[in-house]
Amino acid sequence: MISLEEKFRAIGAENAPGQEAQQEIGDLNSLMRGEKLEGIPVDFSHGDVDAFPPTPGSFEACKDGFEIGGQQAYTEYRGAVQIREDLAERLGTFTGLPVSADSELIITPGTQGALFLALGATVTSETKVAVIEPDYFANRKLVKFFDGEIVPVPLNYQGASSENGPDLNRLEAAFKRGTKVFVFSTPNNPTGLVYSGSSIEAIAELAARHKVTVIVDQLYSRMLYSGEVYTHLRACDKQPENLITIMGPSKTESLSGFRLGVAFGTPGLIDRMERLQAIVSLRAAGYNQKVLDTWFAEPSGWMEKRIREHEAIRDEMLKIFRAAGFPCATPQAGSYLFPQLPHLVVDPHTFVRLLRYQAGVTVTPGTEFAPGSGDSVRLNFSQDRIAAADAVGRIVKMVNLYRK
Amino acid sequence: MISLEEKFRAIGAENAPGQEAQQEIGDLNSLMRGEKLEGIPVDFSHGDVDAFPPTPGSFEACKDGFEIGGQQAYTEYRGAVQIREDLAERLGTFTGLPVSADSELIITPGTQGALFLALGATVTSETKVAVIEPDYFANRKLVKFFDGEIVPVPLNYQGASSENGPDLNRLEAAFKRGTKVFVFSTPNNPTGLVYSGSSIEAIAELAARHKVTVIVDQLYSRMLYSGEVYTHLRACDKQPENLITIMGPSKTESLSGFRLGVAFGTPGLIDRMERLQAIVSLRAAGYNQKVLDTWFAEPSGWMEKRIREHEAIRDEMLKIFRAAGFPCATPQAGSYLFPQLPHLVVDPHTFVRLLRYQAGVTVTPGTEFAPGSGDSVRLNFSQDRIAAADAVGRIVKMVNLYRK
Repeated sequence: MISLEEKFRAIGAENAPGQEAQQEIGDLNSLMRGEKLEGIPVDFSHGDVDAFPPTPGSFEACKDGFEIGGQQAYTEYRGAVQIREDLAERLGTFTGLPVSADSELIITPGTQGALFLALGATVTSETKVAVIEPDYFANRKLVKFFDGEIVPVPLNYQGASSENGPDLNRLEAAFKRGTKVFVFSTPNNPTGLVYSGSSIEAIAELAARHKVTVIVDQLYSRMLYSGEVYTHLRACDKQPENLITIMGPSKTESLSGFRLGVAFGTPGLIDRMERLQAIVSLRAAGYNQKVLDTWFAEPSGWMEKRIREHEAIRDEMLKIFRAAGFPCATPQAGSYLFPQLPHLVVDPHTFVRLLRYQAGVTVTPGTEFAPGSGDSVRLNFSQDRIAAADAVGRIVKMVNLYRK
Repeated sequence: MISLEEKFRAIGAENAPGQEAQQEIGDLNSLMRGEKLEGIPVDFSHGDVDAFPPTPGSFEACKDGFEIGGQQAYTEYRGAVQIREDLAERLGTFTGLPVSADSELIITPGTQGALFLALGATVTSETKVAVIEPDYFANRKLVKFFDGEIVPVPLNYQGASSENGPDLNRLEAAFKRGTKVFVFSTPNNPTGLVYSGSSIEAIAELAARHKVTVIVDQLYSRMLYSGEVYTHLRACDKQPENLITIMGPSKTESLSGFRLGVAFGTPGLIDRMERLQAIVSLRAAGYNQKVLDTWFAEPSGWMEKRIREHEAIRDEMLKIFRAAGFPCATPQAGSYLFPQLPHLVVDPHTFVRLLRYQAGVTVTPGTEFAPGSGDSVRLNFSQDRIAAADAVGRIVKMVNLYRK
């Protein structure tokens, strides 16, 4: 049994995106090489919703919610019926399999809220959970919080596209050795890798065979770049007995300030998630739920333009990193880059702090995503294009200042 | 170690306020005595924010938050700095002891969110937690979810006011036998009892002596009726080493649709709560946080009027219940009544379901608040006065139809 102290050490948030303000300057001045680098500060730890503003009409939808009054303030814990009904329809179309608004869908406070509920509903002391490395940092923290056991499964993402994907042999071995839950994101956070159709089918088949619950985080699945194909696990022929799919409008749609997400899948798990929601925060903020009416219902052409603009930034930033000789996989979807930096004279966390202090550039250290990814950093490139390109230039300068 | 199945059975939400829509009609028709009772349906499971609308300017504050943009969408997990600074000042004044905005305060998704984080930060497998009976239903469920052990402590609330309060002997005995955490609400939910100054001082002293962490839920402490005095535990001379005070604007201020709450107290616990928030839902919705600028800053006279109006409804409803011969303590604060019903020919849960089906009146069964309180029901009387009085009349009629 993990003690409270260990538990909270394991979920330390000091390097989590957005929490950098709490870090002390410490001894950075004595470690600093050269002068501060001028330039507009850029916070790559999350997207810039001023550069890419929320979906048109989103705030008006929230206002509609407020004007409905009590009925919208106090929805069922799983969310307002009418909103669920409309959403279920659109999510069914998007993922290729109908969703029951009644029994298979819950509205949550953000995608983070959905992940918390899904893992809380399936993981307890000593539950073995397969976790991809690298993957979204909260996955590992959640497993630790619920006192589960992490079974790491490596992701290949730096090779040729045909070789990329999760190590399926390792995954099968984990399933054979008592793994009960598998949680992963596709598009992968932090690399932008989209799991191939054959990977997804293999996962579905293995999970069905070994009775493993699958929690798939598809947060970025709408921002898919030219020529890429997305496979929804829930529409595969073979189906795991227990499957939860998670999405939300916080990223591509820039609606993070409303804290909205959804989870859909196996009714028994959705029931548990609602029970847990009842003691965690009751429901996603009632008025905000109404904003989901704008989701998958954006003005014609709006989503295409947003994707095109992100693709242009992606290409520009990849060019800078590659010209500098830093290996960086091409994200197939989403707005994360995960470049690998050369050996440096300071440790990775110190470099990340120097980058912020000396160059005004905030990135997330690779160790948040996998213990062995200290040589990489994650950038969310949903930013003002010019400021971001300039900031990436400063990263390159900083690496050259601190190169071993 | 509790299994996932037991855990989720323990946190069953089917009788929780607001979830009644999910109940099946079942065999109610065969049990029904007499005809359906006409009248405007009233849902006493929560306050009616149409009858008592949100604080003036609250939605405009949310709009300001949206217009600030990215900075407000992505606050620190513990909430936006400026909002915390202003709030800390006002909460310090209200409770009689300064609050540090930096280290002692976290903004949460509702008071429920604050309770979840506080118990998650202090309770793990086998932690003994003293819980008052009756008290807010989520307290017991949270302890179960975190696999702690409930140590029940009775509350006297039906006697003369000098005899009312927690059983301090039982509390001390619990503290002596290894209780690590004590969670309670004052004003008490569901009875409206305000803990006396001497009770609060005794609790502070006992907790300090036995090194028990105290979590005090003061959600309703602003709605204090004529002649009543409120004592803030955090301003007592003796101080427990670890103390968290919880409040929020969901009730008196009718801001529940925004999901906002706060917890303030011991920095080490606030740190843990923020770490947990980082994996639960990141933060209270960013734009919504701005609504807290209106809290403790209502227009002059607004709060006094709201309290006066509630006091009038309280008195009217007490009169009806007492004329019918149902014992009911006088709430000193808040908007809950907890009348005790006579023996009935159907079990309490069935009666509550019949009440909803036959008379259009929704109340919360007493068993949600204590296993032994099946003969009582809870009503939130923050309702339209005329509809509420009529609905209470229907409760009396229903009791007479089903009286043993």
